[in-house]
Amino acid sequence: MSLALALGRRGQGRTWPNPAVGCVIVRDGRIVGRGWTQPGGRPHAEPQALAQAGAQARGATAYVTLEPCAHHGQTPPCSQALIDAGVARVVAAVTDSDPRVSGQGFDMLRAAGIEVTTGVMASEAAADLQGFFQKIEQGRPFLTLKLASTLDGRIATATGESQWITGPESRRCVHAMRATHDAVMVGAGTARADDPSLTVRDIGVSHQPVRVVVSRRLDVPLMGKLARTANDVPVWLLHGHDADANLVRTWQDLGAMLLPCAQQGGHLGPTAVLQALGSQGLTRVFCEGGGALAASLLAADVVDELVTFTAGIAIGAEGTPSVGALGVAALARAPRFDLVEQRRLGQDIMCIWRKPERMRA
Amino acid sequence: MSLALALGRRGQGRTWPNPAVGCVIVRDGRIVGRGWTQPGGRPHAEPQALAQAGAQARGATAYVTLEPCAHHGQTPPCSQALIDAGVARVVAAVTDSDPRVSGQGFDMLRAAGIEVTTGVMASEAAADLQGFFQKIEQGRPFLTLKLASTLDGRIATATGESQWITGPESRRCVHAMRATHDAVMVGAGTARADDPSLTVRDIGVSHQPVRVVVSRRLDVPLMGKLARTANDVPVWLLHGHDADANLVRTWQDLGAMLLPCAQQGGHLGPTAVLQALGSQGLTRVFCEGGGALAASLLAADVVDELVTFTAGIAIGAEGTPSVGALGVAALARAPRFDLVEQRRLGQDIMCIWRKPERMRA
Repeated sequence: MSLALALGRRGQGRTWPNPAVGCVIVRDGRIVGRGWTQPGGRPHAEPQALAQAGAQARGATAYVTLEPCAHHGQTPPCSQALIDAGVARVVAAVTDSDPRVSGQGFDMLRAAGIEVTTGVMASEAAADLQGFFQKIEQGRPFLTLKLASTLDGRIATATGESQWITGPESRRCVHAMRATHDAVMVGAGTARADDPSLTVRDIGVSHQPVRVVVSRRLDVPLMGKLARTANDVPVWLLHGHDADANLVRTWQDLGAMLLPCAQQGGHLGPTAVLQALGSQGLTRVFCEGGGALAASLLAADVVDELVTFTAGIAIGAEGTPSVGALGVAALARAPRFDLVEQRRLGQDIMCIWRKPERMRA
Repeated sequence: MSLALALGRRGQGRTWPNPAVGCVIVRDGRIVGRGWTQPGGRPHAEPQALAQAGAQARGATAYVTLEPCAHHGQTPPCSQALIDAGVARVVAAVTDSDPRVSGQGFDMLRAAGIEVTTGVMASEAAADLQGFFQKIEQGRPFLTLKLASTLDGRIATATGESQWITGPESRRCVHAMRATHDAVMVGAGTARADDPSLTVRDIGVSHQPVRVVVSRRLDVPLMGKLARTANDVPVWLLHGHDADANLVRTWQDLGAMLLPCAQQGGHLGPTAVLQALGSQGLTRVFCEGGGALAASLLAADVVDELVTFTAGIAIGAEGTPSVGALGVAALARAPRFDLVEQRRLGQDIMCIWRKPERMRA
């Protein structure tokens, strides 16, 4: 199952709207087939692994990270494929919460006389597939918020200088993290200040996540890198209903997709933003700031995972804070995260923090 | 030598104005004596280890973390003690830069026919003894700055709530760090806001470092914990020459020691503050903030080691920053530190950072 999970993770960031599943087929203690959800979400993991196993699948055990599907979608149901191949036993990590599956896959397998074991490494699988489940159950993707700052929590000097606070090892890690998410998201302020390309670079990965900019007024440079490359790698702009119609048309002509969102106070509501991304099928979104967007997401309690990169530099109170105004008065009401992992990256420290209550048992 | 270094560290925080030295005597591959500088700085490490070794010191090898002293101070010279005991060989980590010693200890030993090896684990010993060397060479102690903050670099909410941001494991670690320093230092703002006792508690240590408050105007509560306990554990107040004479007298009556310092801009000069502490014999000072004092020390480039405790909490830009205004415009001129160690403490992450160029080769 550990291997199946590792295989499943290979698809992260490229299988949306489908889950990134892994499958391993074992016969007489030997691995005879391995598969994972392919880019675009098809083929699924099971048929890949079965094809590799061929006749050896008969009487074998299939390890899958998610309940095999039971419905005819754009592919025939994987449960049927497992039955047809003569698999003797299926070991699954978690039940699919997609209403078209949700236990029916297991039922199909059992009805065909296959022994089914569930709940194996369930918490690991649930963590990997959390974005898919959240999209199904709540309509919103898993949200990772990245904060790269000095040790006093600043992301730029008073004059706006921000390149580079963290070192090359941290920046490579950010590119690797982008690649395991369906989309990379920034606020309009960051798009204006940094003119980022938001692509995955220098790590030997050709797949590119969708690039999302949250800008109520579509106040994003029309001559910037995002505008100039919108036809090469998708650019989605989330804007208010009051955005200028000419700007909407111009961006559409540039190749961007425009998603109008409900407002809340002076800016786009974080929940509306995530619902809009979920409705487009995204399961995992990587937000890279700036401070205002980070604060609005933290205040709305929609940050599932927080990744901090901290450099051994102090900029002082005049610098731009990594998190903008949150409106938190009492410490007991401040957003809290559990430390999941810490790692040294060059001269920086990287920490991963998670909302504990969001972990599925 | 590794053991000698560990023994030497036992004295850290309690041997000032003397260095915390360790000594191990080995005869025929067996440890026959161990010693370290005792509280108050006397006896030195070598006579302790020699007394333990007794007659077995004859022909033995003595490992010492610092060159044995050559001068008659309040104790007879340790070099003479090693000669008298009949030690055959002395292995030392670093040369003493005290002008009364500085190579003369080694000369004495060699003149007596003892084989002397130096430079063994020199960088480790130099790091441990850095405060003693800085006091001798620059007149100022080693300065450790502690920053305990949220992951967005805040030490209190907008309403001033700060207890507790970091968890109990981090707080225990802070107490252990206080115990290895000669003094704990805070600014007047922290003394007013938190009414701290600044003592070492709950870790089974009875030794207490000196408590130092930096307050130009002596604006520290006269009914606070520091004032009420100044007769039990030393309280030193660093103030401006313009501080109210009545306040000076009142604090003296309470049992505090008062140290006037030169001003720089509106506050006490960081260099003057450290020189004043060095002139009193301190070798290791642990500063615990607040943000204004931290900023003034960072801006003056006198922070030798930085210890960050970071909790998985976000407070937002309205919170009090861990480091106040620094006046850093260009990123290239911001104070930089190398990551030396990172450790998980409960739900917090603790990092130790050091000024690289201050490490002695």
